[in-house]
This record gives sequence, C-alpha cells and structure tokens, in this order.
Amino acid sequence: MKISARNRLKGKVVDVTLGATTAHVRIDIGGSIITASITNEAVAELGLAAGKDAYAVVKASDVMVAVDD
Amino acid sequence: MKISARNRLKGKVVDVTLGATTAHVRIDIGGSIITASITNEAVAELGLAAGKDAYAVVKASDVMVAVDD
Amino acid sequence: MKISARNRLKGKVVDVTLGATTAHVRIDIGGSIITASITNEAVAELGLAAGKDAYAVVKASDVMVAVDD
Amino acid sequence: MKISARNRLKGKVVDVTLGATTAHVRIDIGGSIITASITNEAVAELGLAAGKDAYAVVKASDVMVAVDD
Amino acid sequence: MKISARNRLKGKVVDVTLGATTAHVRIDIGGSIITASITNEAVAELGLAAGKDAYAVVKASDVMVAVDD
Amino acid sequence: MKISARNRLKGKVVDVTLGATTAHVRIDIGGSIITASITNEAVAELGLAAGKDAYAVVKASDVMVAVDD
Repeated sequence: MKISARNRLKGKVVDVTLGATTAHVRIDIGGSIITASITNEAVAELGLAAGKDAYAVVKASDVMVAVDD
Repeated sequence: MKISARNRLKGKVVDVTLGATTAHVRIDIGGSIITASITNEAVAELGLAAGKDAYAVVKASDVMVAVDD
Repeated sequence: MKISARNRLKGKVVDVTLGATTAHVRIDIGGSIITASITNEAVAELGLAAGKDAYAVVKASDVMVAVDD
Repeated sequence: MKISARNRLKGKVVDVTLGATTAHVRIDIGGSIITASITNEAVAELGLAAGKDAYAVVKASDVMVAVDD
Repeated sequence: MKISARNRLKGKVVDVTLGATTAHVRIDIGGSIITASITNEAVAELGLAAGKDAYAVVKASDVMVAVDD
Repeated sequence: MKISARNRLKGKVVDVTLGATTAHVRIDIGGSIITASITNEAVAELGLAAGKDAYAVVKASDVMVAVDD
C-alpha cells in the first residue's frame, strides 16, 4: 500500500506501553524519539515490540512548526 | 511556552510554498524531510523562510506506525 | 507497507480538485462519498484520477460519533 | 446542529469497549467496520451501545488516500 | 445531530477567507478569536458569513495543553 | 517556543483524570470548559493540576464549524 501521508520516518521501536485501549509506541528515528499513540489492537496486528523496524507516519496537516523565542 | 505535544524535532527550513490560504513548509530533520501544512498567516507570524532553524511539532495521537509487509 | 490506522475503506476515485497547495479527492465507498483533503503533491505521487481504485484511510482517533437528536 | 465535517457515514454500533479514559466504538457502515476512538464520557452522553444507529463523522483533512502497490 | 466531540464553543463569525479549496473562518468566542480551516464547500453548505452565529467544534484528542515557561 | 497553531486559549485547569496511558485535562477558558486528551507523560512533564494556569492549543485544521439547524 502506498499512502498519501507526506511523512514516513524509518526507525526502530524502543518500547511499547499498552494501556486499557490505547498504547504508546516510541520509535527511535536516527537518534530522535517519536511517540505514537495508537490502539492496542494495531500494536497486536503489526506485531510491534522493542527492536522491530518501523516507520512513524504523519499526515502533513498534523505537523505544526515552532521557532525559539 | 512549554507544550504537551510529545514530538518536537529540531531542524532547518528547506523551503516554504505559500498557497491561497494554506502553506507547505519542508523542514530537514537530520537528513529526513518533514512536510508541514500550516496557514500562510503562521508562516508570516513565525518568519519562516529557507535556512531558518525550526521544529516540527506533532501530537502523539497524530502519529501512526507502519511496518514493511 | 502495513499501517496502524484502523480504517481503510476501499473505493474508487470520483474526482480530484487541485487547489493552490491542497487538493480534495472524493472517493466512492460502496455508494457513500468520502472527501479527503490532501496535498497536491500526494495526488501526483499516487497518480490519483477519476476512476482509479483507492482507499480512504483514517486513524481511529480522528473518527467522531454522532447520533440523531 | 449542522457541522462542517465533510464525512458523515450512517451505520449501526457493533460494540463499545470502554478503557480507563478512552473508548473504542465500532460502527458497521454498510458492511465495512469503522473504529472510532472517543472519550468514555462521550459514549455515556450519546448512549452508545451495540445495535444503536450512529454516524461516523470525519473531517476531510483527517482522511488520507492509499493505493495498492 | 449530537456529536461526540467534547468541545463546542458558541460564538459569532468574524470573517471568512476563501482559498482555492480551503477556507479560513474566524469565530469570536466571548472575546477570543478561534480560526478554523475547513473546505470552501462546507462554508457554502453552512452559509457561513461575518455576523452569523456559529460554534467552533474540536475533538478532545486534537487539543494540546501548554504552560508558560 | 512560538508555535504555528492558530488557537491558544488562556485558562485555568479544572481537573485532571489520569487513565492507563491517556489523561483528560479540563481547562476553564473564561467560563467555557475545554477538554484535552493528552498523554499521562505530558501531564507529569507540565505539572498540570487543578488551579494551574494553562493554555488550550489547537491547530486550525482541527477546528470544525457548526451552526444550529
């Protein structure tokens, strides 16, 4: 599947924290850590676990820009 | 201002494309390019232009995870 | 690529309207029309045009629920 | 109330899973299942339960498009 | 229609700026201005124009929190 | 840090409900209550608690508009 989302950053899963319904997955992208909040169900379906290769995917309209004061 | 958004990636603006109301800003984050779709107004307010230091900021609930098939 | 987004609805592109930076793509999903607002760049990259098979993809945290009064 | 969100798909609630704060509601839309991640509070306020008529509502800027490789 | 989105702030439209596909609507909520980026199509369908009563509606998962340094 | 998000509403935290991974923070904005769904981790990092001054921050593309029927 090829998706319209502009941002696909390749990395490796650092850890997965399951909640009651919502999991947090942290991915190391060349030294930066990206946190994704996704469903527990998606974690199971993709077999996400520490050490696994994964992409963080973000739609361009969900990216904000900030500058130092 | 300190914000709850989990993901703040430091980089440098590559280019800014203004639209009629919506601009696309591309930021180089250690070699990866991130595209942000924000208002023209925000571009002006933050003084965004090629070469400027900037952060891409993303709320954790807006990050998806993908794996290769 | 396998993605965490829970909602992938298969359909056919009805029409594509390019804007200055942002395009609207309408997809027929078994009789319902879904509108996606994505970048012009993604439209070009995926080769989206009327009649093409495509999926509408939505993260579960972006779906609201409504009921009639 | 009439809302700007472009996508309102009519269906029937399949099941509701309450979490600690976040619930997952699955809605059958003409045979396709859509998962919504909303607050437990909204589930209570709307009286959502299996079998109830409901709409899945999505803003156009939260819809991505994908195509098969 | 009753919607799951937790945040519905009543106000009055200040102005509407149409773009090629995407409009910006500014709403005065008791003295604060809220900017919404929605489709031109939604502006037409809801008949939005300066002076009209309207609500800004936001899903809880799209609200971030910030504090002063 | 100065951010591109168009909407920054100043208020005071009413209450914080921690979940397993996701917290709900309610902020009083001049009499209106805004609910934010953010990570427990962000609540800890910002020291959010009832009575604390805080801003609700929302990207313009996440704001919908509604009108009465």
